[in-house]
Amino acid sequence: MNSSLELLAAMLPEKVDAAIIISNENRRYFTQFVSSLGFLMLTREEAYLLVDFRYAEAAQANASGCVVTPFEKLSDEIGKIIKRHGIRSVMLEGSAFTLNDAAKIDAVLSDNGAESIHSDELDLLITKLRITKTSCEVDKMIKAQRITEQALTETVKLIKEGVTEQEIAVELEYKMRRLGADGVSFDLIVIAGEKTSMPHGTPGNNKIKSGDFITFDIGALYEGYHSDMTRTYALGHVNDKQKRVYDTVYKAQKLGLEAVKGGAVCKDVDKIVRDFIYQAGFEGCFGHSTGHGVGLEIHEQPALSSGCDTVLQSGMVVTVEPGIYIPGEFGVRIEDMVVVTADGCLNLAVLPKELMIL
Amino acid sequence: MNSSLELLAAMLPEKVDAAIIISNENRRYFTQFVSSLGFLMLTREEAYLLVDFRYAEAAQANASGCVVTPFEKLSDEIGKIIKRHGIRSVMLEGSAFTLNDAAKIDAVLSDNGAESIHSDELDLLITKLRITKTSCEVDKMIKAQRITEQALTETVKLIKEGVTEQEIAVELEYKMRRLGADGVSFDLIVIAGEKTSMPHGTPGNNKIKSGDFITFDIGALYEGYHSDMTRTYALGHVNDKQKRVYDTVYKAQKLGLEAVKGGAVCKDVDKIVRDFIYQAGFEGCFGHSTGHGVGLEIHEQPALSSGCDTVLQSGMVVTVEPGIYIPGEFGVRIEDMVVVTADGCLNLAVLPKELMIL
Repeated sequence: MNSSLELLAAMLPEKVDAAIIISNENRRYFTQFVSSLGFLMLTREEAYLLVDFRYAEAAQANASGCVVTPFEKLSDEIGKIIKRHGIRSVMLEGSAFTLNDAAKIDAVLSDNGAESIHSDELDLLITKLRITKTSCEVDKMIKAQRITEQALTETVKLIKEGVTEQEIAVELEYKMRRLGADGVSFDLIVIAGEKTSMPHGTPGNNKIKSGDFITFDIGALYEGYHSDMTRTYALGHVNDKQKRVYDTVYKAQKLGLEAVKGGAVCKDVDKIVRDFIYQAGFEGCFGHSTGHGVGLEIHEQPALSSGCDTVLQSGMVVTVEPGIYIPGEFGVRIEDMVVVTADGCLNLAVLPKELMIL
Repeated sequence: MNSSLELLAAMLPEKVDAAIIISNENRRYFTQFVSSLGFLMLTREEAYLLVDFRYAEAAQANASGCVVTPFEKLSDEIGKIIKRHGIRSVMLEGSAFTLNDAAKIDAVLSDNGAESIHSDELDLLITKLRITKTSCEVDKMIKAQRITEQALTETVKLIKEGVTEQEIAVELEYKMRRLGADGVSFDLIVIAGEKTSMPHGTPGNNKIKSGDFITFDIGALYEGYHSDMTRTYALGHVNDKQKRVYDTVYKAQKLGLEAVKGGAVCKDVDKIVRDFIYQAGFEGCFGHSTGHGVGLEIHEQPALSSGCDTVLQSGMVVTVEPGIYIPGEFGVRIEDMVVVTADGCLNLAVLPKELMIL
């Protein structure tokens, strides 16, 4: 077993002899092997990666820390492992097994005299491991972030009155792919004018016009890892209200970045940012949380939200993304992705955040 | 309720008072409303679409045939519906509920005195409805197909010695998006040379060279509906063996298309195509099934495979995609997507299939 598998094996509750992991992200996390289907069966002594004929050769060459076990009939191979290790209870990955998938595996376990445990315990254990990132993981996120920044820098040159949000979004994605991204982290948000008041608006065929704010909430995917960044630019000119709102978000985000450090409590970071925005006269205009973890998934633990008691630790990667949204008028959000360190954080974004008028 | 919801309500087993549907595709299918989260709760008398604040306004404006019910606390709204309709048993969508999701809903149902039914029954009922397409659905698939064809036609002009598979794949996707696709149907397959012997190879940085076959297995997404097409072209020249293999696949695909009609059994269509390829001397070189259904998902029922007893009916949409794969040398696949009619099928692809040498 590799070290991440050994850690998980050691964390398994006493009542549990084995665990089955099927989500693409977790299979990839523990074995470094990418596939669209596979069963990682972890016992206390050994880890098995069960794959079908499509992946057998590649898995044998590339999977880390596990015995690659090609299967024609999955139930046969699971049965052998159960017998080999004398397994009596198996915990399933509750966030990934559907009811139908679980029913099939439960039948196999039952046929082999083993009990199936349905709960979210395994997910919680895996989250404990994944919540802090290795330098190798952070390197991939930095690469994803650089691609995102370069793509945005190139794409903003195309913005002028009359181009549509959708056109810009398509160009951005194309440039990310050309720069080596495996894809986008999520459906890119490129919205302009009044639509910027919606935190999760989607690009449409409306034309960008002078005086608009344009919000780019974008990210690239690189070797499985996500980046996440938001910049709000203006086209042509801004009025005083736009300036005041931008300035408030800019300062709130700076306060948030300053509050992120090892030992800080997530909800306290959220409160610092939120209080600042509310006290500036924008109570009710910041309806989402201050940030979230990022990694193999775009939304991971911890959450920088009022309900999250998690204590930040070195190696966690979180976004800091306050916003102010004024319905019917406009919105502003600024977001960076940072790695928590013992006494602060390292900002993975280098693109400037001062108000930019295109 | 709209007609699809009424049909499903009428199909619910006697023991069941309500059903909860959460997959994006099925929610969209029954309500025409697109969202990344939502709970469609179908009783015998009424359908409810439960959405959070993000989707409340848009759902009220656009969702079809259901009572849009915004929720702050999901359990409260489900509790009200259970009481209003005197519900005692609720069937969950077994292919979409994870164990963790189901545990949460089960607790809500139990708190309200209702029993939760975990099975794949609901999935099977929904498949019965979705397996035949309306003309409105087919129109969207035709649009997706035209985008795919135009993008391929434009992109092949860029192919010359030295360009990479990955470069071509990125261009293809870009062109699809510019032509109005919402995205791609699946990770586009653009592979060349020896790699064409792998039915599901992925584009890499290897350069295309003269004498290569290039396989394009591609599709666009349009308003939720997928297209799926494969063309195999050659660069520069082909040898006699390549010609013979291409010709065999071409004829096999024609035979397959001729066999698809209302009343034909799926496995018989597969057998006709398979027998032809095997008798031409390529036994063991066609390792996948002849085709599959397409719609809101890229792989749907029915399967044109040796194990599928489904009788083809008017309105089903299936691919016909035989291939011959010779390890270490090359492979050829040709695929169209067709709508089954009473006495044949309507080919949704219009792009020529004669051997094309770029």
